[in-house]
Amino acid sequence: MFKNTITFIALATPLFFLIFSTPPRSSYHSLYISSSLSDNASISRHLYTLTRRPHVAGSQANADAAAYVLSTLTSCNIRSHIVSYDVLLTYPVSRSLTLTPSPQEAPTTSDLTQEIYEGDPYADVANEVLPTFHAYAKSGTVSGPVVYVNYGRVEDYAKLKEMGVNVSGTVVLARYGQIYRGDIVENAYEAGAVGVLVYTDRKDYGGGGGDAKWFPDDKWMPPSGVQVGSVYGGTGDPTTPGWPSAGACERISDDEVARREDIPKIPSLPISAANGEAILRSVGGLVANDDWQGGADVPVYRVGPGPGIVNLSYEGKQIINTIQNVIGVIEGAEEPDRFVILGNHRDAWTFGAVDPNSGTAALLEVAQRLEKLQKRGWKPRRTIVFCNWDAEEYGLIGSTEWVEENREIVASRVIAYLNVDSAVYGAGFYASATPQLDELLKQATQQVQDPDNSSQTIYESWVGSSNSPIIGRLGGGGSDYAAFVQHVGVPAADLSFGEGYAVYHSMYDDFVWMMKFGDPMFHRHVAVANVWGLVALRLADEEFLPFNYLSYVNELQKSTEDLKGDVSDKGISLIPLFKSIEELKKAATNINKQRKAIEENKGWASMWKNDPWKVRELNDRLMMAERAFTDRDGLTGRPWYKHLIYAPSKHNDYGSTSFPGIGDAIEKANNLDTAESWLSVQHEVWRVSRAVTHVSLVLNGELT
Amino acid sequence: MFKNTITFIALATPLFFLIFSTPPRSSYHSLYISSSLSDNASISRHLYTLTRRPHVAGSQANADAAAYVLSTLTSCNIRSHIVSYDVLLTYPVSRSLTLTPSPQEAPTTSDLTQEIYEGDPYADVANEVLPTFHAYAKSGTVSGPVVYVNYGRVEDYAKLKEMGVNVSGTVVLARYGQIYRGDIVENAYEAGAVGVLVYTDRKDYGGGGGDAKWFPDDKWMPPSGVQVGSVYGGTGDPTTPGWPSAGACERISDDEVARREDIPKIPSLPISAANGEAILRSVGGLVANDDWQGGADVPVYRVGPGPGIVNLSYEGKQIINTIQNVIGVIEGAEEPDRFVILGNHRDAWTFGAVDPNSGTAALLEVAQRLEKLQKRGWKPRRTIVFCNWDAEEYGLIGSTEWVEENREIVASRVIAYLNVDSAVYGAGFYASATPQLDELLKQATQQVQDPDNSSQTIYESWVGSSNSPIIGRLGGGGSDYAAFVQHVGVPAADLSFGEGYAVYHSMYDDFVWMMKFGDPMFHRHVAVANVWGLVALRLADEEFLPFNYLSYVNELQKSTEDLKGDVSDKGISLIPLFKSIEELKKAATNINKQRKAIEENKGWASMWKNDPWKVRELNDRLMMAERAFTDRDGLTGRPWYKHLIYAPSKHNDYGSTSFPGIGDAIEKANNLDTAESWLSVQHEVWRVSRAVTHVSLVLNGELT
Repeated sequence: MFKNTITFIALATPLFFLIFSTPPRSSYHSLYISSSLSDNASISRHLYTLTRRPHVAGSQANADAAAYVLSTLTSCNIRSHIVSYDVLLTYPVSRSLTLTPSPQEAPTTSDLTQEIYEGDPYADVANEVLPTFHAYAKSGTVSGPVVYVNYGRVEDYAKLKEMGVNVSGTVVLARYGQIYRGDIVENAYEAGAVGVLVYTDRKDYGGGGGDAKWFPDDKWMPPSGVQVGSVYGGTGDPTTPGWPSAGACERISDDEVARREDIPKIPSLPISAANGEAILRSVGGLVANDDWQGGADVPVYRVGPGPGIVNLSYEGKQIINTIQNVIGVIEGAEEPDRFVILGNHRDAWTFGAVDPNSGTAALLEVAQRLEKLQKRGWKPRRTIVFCNWDAEEYGLIGSTEWVEENREIVASRVIAYLNVDSAVYGAGFYASATPQLDELLKQATQQVQDPDNSSQTIYESWVGSSNSPIIGRLGGGGSDYAAFVQHVGVPAADLSFGEGYAVYHSMYDDFVWMMKFGDPMFHRHVAVANVWGLVALRLADEEFLPFNYLSYVNELQKSTEDLKGDVSDKGISLIPLFKSIEELKKAATNINKQRKAIEENKGWASMWKNDPWKVRELNDRLMMAERAFTDRDGLTGRPWYKHLIYAPSKHNDYGSTSFPGIGDAIEKANNLDTAESWLSVQHEVWRVSRAVTHVSLVLNGELT
Repeated sequence: MFKNTITFIALATPLFFLIFSTPPRSSYHSLYISSSLSDNASISRHLYTLTRRPHVAGSQANADAAAYVLSTLTSCNIRSHIVSYDVLLTYPVSRSLTLTPSPQEAPTTSDLTQEIYEGDPYADVANEVLPTFHAYAKSGTVSGPVVYVNYGRVEDYAKLKEMGVNVSGTVVLARYGQIYRGDIVENAYEAGAVGVLVYTDRKDYGGGGGDAKWFPDDKWMPPSGVQVGSVYGGTGDPTTPGWPSAGACERISDDEVARREDIPKIPSLPISAANGEAILRSVGGLVANDDWQGGADVPVYRVGPGPGIVNLSYEGKQIINTIQNVIGVIEGAEEPDRFVILGNHRDAWTFGAVDPNSGTAALLEVAQRLEKLQKRGWKPRRTIVFCNWDAEEYGLIGSTEWVEENREIVASRVIAYLNVDSAVYGAGFYASATPQLDELLKQATQQVQDPDNSSQTIYESWVGSSNSPIIGRLGGGGSDYAAFVQHVGVPAADLSFGEGYAVYHSMYDDFVWMMKFGDPMFHRHVAVANVWGLVALRLADEEFLPFNYLSYVNELQKSTEDLKGDVSDKGISLIPLFKSIEELKKAATNINKQRKAIEENKGWASMWKNDPWKVRELNDRLMMAERAFTDRDGLTGRPWYKHLIYAPSKHNDYGSTSFPGIGDAIEKANNLDTAESWLSVQHEVWRVSRAVTHVSLVLNGELT
C-alpha cells in the first residue's frame, strides 16, 4: 500500500523541509573538490608510511600495510574489515644466468642484482626486496643460442620466420614495452623457444650507458634496474579457477595448475638493461629491422641465433599464502542496497610508491574527505564501498576472488566500480571506462583544476586540441577492474595521472622517486582524489544514475565499422550487429527521454520530488544494462571472460579488444581459412548482436 | 531524499485512510476463492471452444485458439498481445509398419489409424488430427527382428544383457509408461537397435482385449488409440540452441540439427495396444521377467529377438513454422517491476481437452475472476503476467524461446512462475514446486475446499493420513516451468488435479472425455483456478514474499543423505555440501527473523506501515536467492541446464533429479571406475556446495 502513501507525501513535505531541511547533496560535491577539504600533506604521509618497506603479497609487511589501511578507514568512521583468502603465490628460490658470448670466449655469470645507490634511504631494507623474478615462471634449467625477438609479439615472430630465423630450441631475448610479459613468454613457447629473457631497453625505459642520467639523478631506470612481474596469463588464484579461494575450498592439483594454458611452460627471467646489452652484443646473424633497433650501446641489433649461448636457471616455490583485502563501507541513507565501489590494490613488487600506493594514498584521501562531509551532515544516498585489494600483481587475485565470492550481490546491486591502480605515474590525466560513463568523466574533469596548470581544468588539458578526450576501454587485464567488467559486467572506470614510468616494477619505485619526479607537491594525487571522489559522489548521490548509453552506441558503431575490413570479402554479414546497435540507439534515446519525462511530470502530487519507485525502476535498468553485454557461456575457449564487448586481446593481456570473440574467430579463420572457420566468425557476430539486443531489452524494461 | 519523506508518511497516513481507505488486499483474496466469483459453466465453455478442432502447434486452428485466448484476456481488461517465433516443427509425411510374424507367415501391414467410434461428435474434424507419429523422429526405413524391451529404460537393457539378448540390429518394442519417449528412443539407439516401436500396454493405460471397456464407454484408451508425442531430448527450437528464435536470427543448419545429441538417430513410431499385441505375439525367445509382463491378451511376454520381423518406415518434414505465445499483463500498482507469472500452454497433439486446455480454461477463469476483483477496487501490488505458450508439445518451445529472449528481465524481476499444464487429469491434488514455495502451497490448499469432498479442504485430502503432503520437484522436462527453473533459477510451482490419464496424447483426449470422465461438473477446474489464483495473489500482493528457504534446507539435507550410499566407499567427502547447507540454514533462519523484526519495529514513525525500502531489499534477497542455485557454466556436458539442484535425469527427461551434476558424474564414475572419474564426482559435490554458499550470501545480502 505504500505507493498511495508516497503520493501523499507531497502534502507533508513542505512542512518537513522547513523543519529538517539539509543542503542539497550537490553542494557537498562542490565542497568535496574545494581546496578547503583536500590535504596533500596527508596524502604524502600516507604514501610515506605505506612504502617504508617492500610489501609483496603474502608478506608480513603487506599485512602490516593492510592494518594501516584498515585503521585509517576505521578512523574515518567507515565500517571496515579484512577479507582474507588463501591463494597460490610464487617466490624465487634460486636463479642463475650465464652467457657464453662465443665458443672462443669464457662464460660470464650475472649476479642479477639491482644496485643500491649511494645515499639510498631504503638501503637498510633493500634485502627485503625479492630477488628479481617472474611470478609463476616455470622452474627449470635451459640453455641455447640466443635469438633477439624485439618485443616478442606474434608479428615479431612472423617477421623472424620471414627472415628465415628458426627460433626452435633457442633462448629468446625480448625487450619489455609493448605487450604483457606473460604473453612474451607464451609467444616464445609457441614459437618453440626453450627459455625467455626479458630486458629493459633504454629506448623504452631510459637509462643505459653513455652520458645518460638515471635514478636517483633522473626519472629513468638505472642500468641494473629490473622490471619484475607476473607471467601468469589468467585471472585470480590459479588453484581455484572460477570460484573463490574462501575457507576450506576445492583446489585443483599442482599438476593441473602446471597444465593450465595460462601458466608458463618454459622458464623465464626478467633482466636489466646492462644484462640485456651484454647479451645483445653476443648475437650475430642478420641485422634486425630498423624498428627493432634500440637504445643499448650496441652498434647494431642482430637477430641471431647465437653465437651467444645462454644458460638460464630458475627455481621458484609455489605456496598457498594468505592475502588480505580491506573492505570499508559507508552505508547509503536511502538506497543502502545499491553500491558504488572504489578500488585500488595495496601489494607491491617492491616499495610501490607509484604502483600501487599512490592509488592507496589517494583512496585514503577520498575516505578522509568523505568523513569531513559526513561531519557536516552529508550522507550518501547509496552505499559507498572502499576496496583495497591484495595480490593484484600476481594476477588480479584479491579482487578476482572477492568478485567470485560475491558474484550474485555484485551482479544485482553494484552501480559501478571505480578503479585507481596507481594514482600518479607522471603528468596528464588518463581515463578508461565502459562508455556509459564517458559523459560523467567529462563533466567531473570539467569541475576539477589541472594540477599542472592552474589556469585550466583537467578536462581542458585532457582534451587538448581535440574535440573530445581519448577515453580508453577496459578490455585489458591490467588491473582490478577486470573481474568487475569482464566477468560480471559492471560499469567501471580506471583513472590516473600519467600512463607509464621508467622504474616500473623495479626496486627504484619508492617514495624518493615520487618526491623527486612523480609528484613532488602531491597535487596530482589531490587531483586524482578530486576526480575519483567526485565521480563516486555523483554515482552515489544523484537521483538518476548519470549513465548515458548513447556513448556505448557510438563505440559499438565504430568498432563494427573497424571490423568491415577484416571480413568484407569473406562472406560475413555484419548486418545483424548493425541492426542490434540501431535498436540500442533507440532504447538509449528512449530511456533518456523517460528520465526527462519523470522529471517534468511530477505534477501537483509531488511538487517536491519524483516518484522514488519510478526512479529506482529506471535506475535499475541503467545499472543492469551493462550486465546484458555478458554471456553466461563466455568467450569461446575463454569461458571466464563473460563480456562479449571487452576482453583482453588474446596475445596481449594488456591490450583491450572490442568484440574479442569475433577477433579470436577471425584470427583462427585467417589461419585455417576453411568455410567452417568463417562460419564461426559469423556465429560470433550473431552472439554479439544478441547481447546488444539483450541490452536494449533491459533498457526498455519490458517483457516481449 | 525520499527516505526522510517516507518516514514522514506516518503522520499523514491516518488522515489518508479516513478519506481513501480501501479494504485490505487479503479480503480480496477471500473473495477470489469464494463461490460467488467462480464460474464452472464459463470454464466449461472455454474448454469446449478451445477444443472444437485439433490444434497442433503451427496450425491455423492453433492460431485461432490464440486469438480466442487473446480476446478473452483483453475482454478481462488485461493488456495482452501475441509474441510470435519462427521455429522448427515436424509433421508426418508417410508411415508404414509391416510385421512378418515368422518365416512361415505372410507379412501384415497396419493402417496405423485410430478408430472413430459411432456417434463421435468430432468425427467430422477427425481428418484434421495428424497421423500418429513421433515429432522429430528420424526419417528412414529399417527392418529387423523384434526385441521386447519392457519400458526401454537403461536398467531394462541391463537386464537383457544379463539374459544374453543382443539388441544390436533389432527393432525394439517398448511400452509407454515409465520414462520420456525420447529417452526410450535414445536408450534403444545406445543399445544398438535400428528402430523403435512404442506401444500402449493395457497394464499401464487400460483398454486392450477381452471384456474390458474403453472410451467412449470408460475412461481407458481404446485398442486403436495411440499416444503420439515428441522424441526430441532438448528444450526449445532445435535450430536456435540457447538463444531466441526472434526475427531474422541465426540458425544452425539442418545437418547440425541432425547431429545434435538430443535429436533421434533412428526411426521410431508410436503404435496402438492392438498393434503392440500383434507384435508381442510374434516374439519368442526367453520368457520376460514377471514385472515385464503386461495386460495384452498374449499368453506370456517373451523378449526375442524375433522370430517376428518388423519393417518400419517413417518420413517427416521439418519446417520453420510460426508459433504464438499470448502474453497478458495486469500492471502492479506499487511494484510494477516485480512479476508473478502464470503459465499454461495451448497447443495440443489432438483436441487437447485435458492436455493442455483444461489448464487454458482454468487460466481464463483466473483472468475473469481477477477482472471481477479489479472492478471491486483491487489492484495488485506487483505485476501479474499471463502466459499462454505455444509448441510445448514439441519440446517446451514457446516458453523456452520467450525465456531466452527475456532472460535478463526474467532473471532480475520475476518473483515466481506458476505453471498449470493440464488442470485436470482426474481426482486428487498434485503439486510440484521449488521448496521455498512449499509452505505457501500448503497454506493456499488449506483455504480451498476439495471439489470431490465438500467436508474437507484440498489440503486435508492431499495430505491424507501422512503428516505432510508429497510435493514433487521441478527437475523434469515435462512442462513449461523448465526454462524458468532450470535455465534461469526462478522459484516455480506446477499444479494439477490428477496425475495421468489413459487417453493421453491420443485423439480421444476431447471434450467428451472430460465431460464424461475427467471433470463432469468442472469443479476440479474451479479448484485448480482457486489454488492457482490464490497462490498468485499472495505472491503478487503480500508485502513480504511468502517464501521460506528452510524447506529448501530440508530438501537439500535429504538429498545429500541420499547420496551417502552412492559415494561412501569411494573416498568422496560430502562434508563441504553438508557445511554449506548448515550455512544456508542459518541464513534462512536469519532472514525469517529479519522479516519479523521489520514488522515488529515499525516504531512511532511508521505506525501504519513498514519502511517500504527495507521490505523491498529483503524481498529482493528472497527473490534472487533461487538464482544463485544456478551456475553460469551449467551442468557438465549439458550447459543449457544452469540449475545445479534440479534438472532432468539424464536417461529420463520426465524424471527430476536432485544434484543432477553429481548424479551424472557418479554414473560415469561407476562405469569407468578410475581415480579421475571419482575426482570429478568430488568436483561436482564442490560445485553444488559453492552454489548453496552463494544462496546463503544472497539471503544474507551483505558483501563479504
